[in-house]
Amino acid sequence: MSAKFIVIEGLEGAGKTTAVNAIRSLLRARGIDFITTREPGGTPIAEALRRLWKEGCEGEHTTDKAELLMLYAARTQLVETLIRPALAAGKWVIGDRHDMSTQAYQGGGRGLEDKLLNQLKQAVLGDFEPDLTLYLDIDPQLGLARARGRGALDRIEQQNIEFFTRARSRYLQLVRNNPKAVLIDASQSAEKVAADIVEAVRLGLLDSSAAGE
Amino acid sequence: MSAKFIVIEGLEGAGKTTAVNAIRSLLRARGIDFITTREPGGTPIAEALRRLWKEGCEGEHTTDKAELLMLYAARTQLVETLIRPALAAGKWVIGDRHDMSTQAYQGGGRGLEDKLLNQLKQAVLGDFEPDLTLYLDIDPQLGLARARGRGALDRIEQQNIEFFTRARSRYLQLVRNNPKAVLIDASQSAEKVAADIVEAVRLGLLDSSAAGE
Repeated sequence: MSAKFIVIEGLEGAGKTTAVNAIRSLLRARGIDFITTREPGGTPIAEALRRLWKEGCEGEHTTDKAELLMLYAARTQLVETLIRPALAAGKWVIGDRHDMSTQAYQGGGRGLEDKLLNQLKQAVLGDFEPDLTLYLDIDPQLGLARARGRGALDRIEQQNIEFFTRARSRYLQLVRNNPKAVLIDASQSAEKVAADIVEAVRLGLLDSSAAGE
Repeated sequence: MSAKFIVIEGLEGAGKTTAVNAIRSLLRARGIDFITTREPGGTPIAEALRRLWKEGCEGEHTTDKAELLMLYAARTQLVETLIRPALAAGKWVIGDRHDMSTQAYQGGGRGLEDKLLNQLKQAVLGDFEPDLTLYLDIDPQLGLARARGRGALDRIEQQNIEFFTRARSRYLQLVRNNPKAVLIDASQSAEKVAADIVEAVRLGLLDSSAAGE
């Protein structure tokens, strides 16, 4: 079986780290060699872009379009220098976020035009895509509360809820239209989520009829 | 007269700084308010991208596509936060490099596909373009020798000559096809180059029939 690229997607607090760990355990149990990555980041230059993206510079507001281009710069650097070579060498790749995050956050959340997003995606990634995307679906209120480790959100976090609600809607729409994406109900217990993740990877990649390809 | 965006383009050692200074003097003499910028750079975030682009990170090779996206991230940040607002406020803008550099270096020099470059340019800049581009044309051997302040080039610089020769060819092609671009012979004396620059700005923008628009 050729090496596969599995991506975990979802809002803050959806449990992406737990999901990545569940897949690591599964692949290890099957004796499959793999690497894990995260986006934006995963290589020195991509991590430097991540820091600039997160922290900004001298308080300057980064425009939505500049942010989008920085994210794609980090993505192409990661794909070309790490993900593609790993897959070519027979190593599976588990990615904590990939292109669907940009579609959901910059498209749905920030409201950047579909046309711009599609042009850029096509220009940068072409036909490259994950073999399986596991989208951990969660209500933004619950996700943010989990991410913060407490029950109540402050005023700014409440405003962010609208942003995350738009991102979630876009995620749901993308998953519905992507035959290589699976929705996981992330409001369940961590154990049940991990079990669903393992099941999805088993059925989708390991024990499917396509597994012998 | 509405504020204008004037760009100086050309290879290393072509004399862009001298050219910028000549335009500054001319605009000052005419009582025209202006700012100067440089690319990549010109805002804190864009300058941070410039440093990452020039210096890299932990010795990692930046892919050509990641470089291209970083340059466009810096460009859109500069255009949207500094150049457009300045023009809207009636200030002229003198730019040390702009999009033509990307076409020449990443397109001609690195050999990135025209289709990718055109898609990205359209997606990022749309119809935005300089009112006048002054391309300082110089033989790469002479330009690099000038930039290094001496007569002979070492082996690596000799290899770079091929890169710069491709960039120059692309510059010449772009200038031929751009009615808003003027070629200045930069092999002339600094005084003659400055005089040609001033003449081109006078004829192209200040004293032209379009000046009253």
